Amino acid sequence: MAAPEIDLNADIGESFGSWTIGDDAAILDVVTSANVACGFHAGDPAGLLRTCQLAADRNVVIGAHVGYRDLAGFGRRFIDVTPEDLCADVLYQIGALAGLARAAGTTISYVKPHGALYNAVVRHQQQAAAVVQAVRRYDPALPLMGLPGSVVLALAKAAGLRTISEAFADRAYTPQGSLVPRSETGALLQDPQQVAARMVSVATTGRLTAVDGGEIDVHADSLCIHGDSPGAVAMAVAVRQALSAAGVHIRPFVGR
Amino acid sequence: MAAPEIDLNADIGESFGSWTIGDDAAILDVVTSANVACGFHAGDPAGLLRTCQLAADRNVVIGAHVGYRDLAGFGRRFIDVTPEDLCADVLYQIGALAGLARAAGTTISYVKPHGALYNAVVRHQQQAAAVVQAVRRYDPALPLMGLPGSVVLALAKAAGLRTISEAFADRAYTPQGSLVPRSETGALLQDPQQVAARMVSVATTGRLTAVDGGEIDVHADSLCIHGDSPGAVAMAVAVRQALSAAGVHIRPFVGR
Amino acid sequence: MAAPEIDLNADIGESFGSWTIGDDAAILDVVTSANVACGFHAGDPAGLLRTCQLAADRNVVIGAHVGYRDLAGFGRRFIDVTPEDLCADVLYQIGALAGLARAAGTTISYVKPHGALYNAVVRHQQQAAAVVQAVRRYDPALPLMGLPGSVVLALAKAAGLRTISEAFADRAYTPQGSLVPRSETGALLQDPQQVAARMVSVATTGRLTAVDGGEIDVHADSLCIHGDSPGAVAMAVAVRQALSAAGVHIRPFVGR
Amino acid sequence: MAAPEIDLNADIGESFGSWTIGDDAAILDVVTSANVACGFHAGDPAGLLRTCQLAADRNVVIGAHVGYRDLAGFGRRFIDVTPEDLCADVLYQIGALAGLARAAGTTISYVKPHGALYNAVVRHQQQAAAVVQAVRRYDPALPLMGLPGSVVLALAKAAGLRTISEAFADRAYTPQGSLVPRSETGALLQDPQQVAARMVSVATTGRLTAVDGGEIDVHADSLCIHGDSPGAVAMAVAVRQALSAAGVHIRPFVGR
Repeated sequence: MAAPEIDLNADIGESFGSWTIGDDAAILDVVTSANVACGFHAGDPAGLLRTCQLAADRNVVIGAHVGYRDLAGFGRRFIDVTPEDLCADVLYQIGALAGLARAAGTTISYVKPHGALYNAVVRHQQQAAAVVQAVRRYDPALPLMGLPGSVVLALAKAAGLRTISEAFADRAYTPQGSLVPRSETGALLQDPQQVAARMVSVATTGRLTAVDGGEIDVHADSLCIHGDSPGAVAMAVAVRQALSAAGVHIRPFVGR
Repeated sequence: MAAPEIDLNADIGESFGSWTIGDDAAILDVVTSANVACGFHAGDPAGLLRTCQLAADRNVVIGAHVGYRDLAGFGRRFIDVTPEDLCADVLYQIGALAGLARAAGTTISYVKPHGALYNAVVRHQQQAAAVVQAVRRYDPALPLMGLPGSVVLALAKAAGLRTISEAFADRAYTPQGSLVPRSETGALLQDPQQVAARMVSVATTGRLTAVDGGEIDVHADSLCIHGDSPGAVAMAVAVRQALSAAGVHIRPFVGR
Repeated sequence: MAAPEIDLNADIGESFGSWTIGDDAAILDVVTSANVACGFHAGDPAGLLRTCQLAADRNVVIGAHVGYRDLAGFGRRFIDVTPEDLCADVLYQIGALAGLARAAGTTISYVKPHGALYNAVVRHQQQAAAVVQAVRRYDPALPLMGLPGSVVLALAKAAGLRTISEAFADRAYTPQGSLVPRSETGALLQDPQQVAARMVSVATTGRLTAVDGGEIDVHADSLCIHGDSPGAVAMAVAVRQALSAAGVHIRPFVGR
Repeated sequence: MAAPEIDLNADIGESFGSWTIGDDAAILDVVTSANVACGFHAGDPAGLLRTCQLAADRNVVIGAHVGYRDLAGFGRRFIDVTPEDLCADVLYQIGALAGLARAAGTTISYVKPHGALYNAVVRHQQQAAAVVQAVRRYDPALPLMGLPGSVVLALAKAAGLRTISEAFADRAYTPQGSLVPRSETGALLQDPQQVAARMVSVATTGRLTAVDGGEIDVHADSLCIHGDSPGAVAMAVAVRQALSAAGVHIRPFVGR
């Protein structure tokens, strides 16, 4: 029987000019797939080029982390963009990052919506369709990463795109399998060992304990971890070590 | 003996959101190469996508018109960008437009600096080198369009890039072959018939009358015309008609 | 008995750098109050300074036309900004325009939300409260202009602010007194004489014919006209002439 | 004989949205004057409002730290802005910060150019004149802070503005009294005790040791210290303590 395998992804390239967020080199030593900002919610071109080179040096797969055009809001505020504008905004961002990746000797291997756009396309039919259309028009072979059960992944599948479902390492889940909203107590998990054990469970059994103590099914091709603080990097390392110790093969989803 | 041939280029894609500049469809009916803005000095993604589609529909060759990050100044103000930042800014812009062009079923066939960047790289060694490096890193087969005698074209040739020299249809030339500065009287030519006759001379003899009445050599692979006003489109049409009447074959430089 | 009086307002200062929208000088010859953009959805500082000077030259009252931070969308897309951010964004914009107005020898006399923000604060309690808080913190004597019946005007009154209700010259009204959505046929009125007659009715009787042919009450301290096209300026002139001919005193709301 | 007195100033408000630079609260406990960013090179409105409130709570005087419109470059890149645009850009920034300061119960008490603009107006006549014109048009009673011997301070004096000369705590000086360029070895001083002793010398004797070991005259109304790193705050504290120990009265320049 084949060993279970899983992808680890994290957000990087989120600095902007003189402003720094996260330690891209440190997190790139842990993950197998990197969601790299594309300049609309974060990421200046020179910083993104350096990030792409760090990823290329480590053979980490790059995804285009596309977001709303909103530096002041870090892409975390819903914007009621028309589908036509959103499709073009996503194409522009994928292409821009692809240009930098190409100069760094690598390529874009998947697309993942960021922040408020990620949340919007869980349910917003028009914006979800616009994201899918952008990916399909750019390259129908490019996979789209998102939340299991989301509208965007359903539309992507229907359009013939490959999809990547992810679970969130440091988030609590409801009995229905959705994320506990950040506004609720206990939404964010902070104990590295607990988080690591949960991710081993997802990777090996596809099961996870919900907030009510019951077991739920969580299908994940990739596990999303965070790297925007020293504590986050430590948690990411703990998750990776626990997965390895449990015999899980850690490798990028793309290329399988 | 082969008929003389020449490329006609103009700047398009210079609208931004609700703000419109130029009549892209009208000018695309005249030129063979279109310098399309890339979002840093002008051009929102949805508008650029429409412009790319208009160009693709007419088989007009697309160039990436890369500029400084300066919407408020329309890229017409020199910015003392570091070579590292400028190289990445150019890569980002080429890639972004390439993403949109791809969705429109076409590609980027050359790169041309815009506005103050165009003027800077005539003499500014470091910025010129940064532009050349960006093009070379993106695709060493991508030609670079610029001013004859400029530092940027010299560096491009030295780096093995193909170069495209251009003459300006509506500008007066000094006896030394440079452009009469816009601030001087007579710098801008406004008579369509005079402009058309001058461009026929460039295309058929490589000679042009300077402001002092003397003849100068002007080598041009492409003629830059403007389309940002109704009068400009009319002048562009006059140039094209005069060239055709003189037996000049009008075709894109790229692909020859 | 005193002659009826009414204020006429229009949006100006909506150009940005090299991009032009509207003919500010022409519309300033017609209106008594000018909603001047503040740089977030439109308006570069140098252009806004010229606009403020044109308004000062004509003794037209200036209002701060505050919007979402969204040049690419011209402030016409809802953004889910937090109340804290929105309050500060509004303060920043009022102050910025006040600085330019001061240099032009005039002042800001009222505040009006623009575009999607205008529409949002008709019903969105938190954003409406944030706008009211910003105005009150900047200057509790500054009136707030908005839609009759909107949440923002109700909150403004409750906070002790003076409010300015407006009617829209070129829009059809429902039997309930709200605007017919732009997406519906007949929402926009285009006949200058019809529009002028309707505005005379509002100014003299406070009554207007709704789309179903019935009469409705429309209380308006100010009439909003548009000036972003030659036809719009002509309609504005027609409205002003008809009001004068009907004996309506046209004067700014502020200062009464 | 009166005790010597000196002002201490530092740059704050330099965060932007989710990106943080500096510890504004910590540095506001040390300085008497705060150069607060105005949104063009750094500073989102909500963050600037919080910073203004922190300053108001501590009775620290606020100056408008005006810069080029260049978030990606943090205002550290020269931009060849026309005087007309620059004057309006400065007015806009002063007004914007004044709006936030007003909501925080305080006011703008001086203006200081930031970064590349600060350096440009040392010699650039047109840009220096534009800055002076902006301050004079906003409020002729508003002092302008700058480098001793700079064109901008000379033009400010000639225009009747009050000027504030500053010395830089952590910078080496040439025998001619100018700053050793950052690109040269030894330009930046890092020993808190040495820096503190030098600033005591400036405040009590108006003399400073240049890089060649000779003594030079350095007239300073204010000492510029930095607070954008933990080490910088520690150095600022050391300077303040040494000045107090030497009997120097630390108080804002404005209000004297």
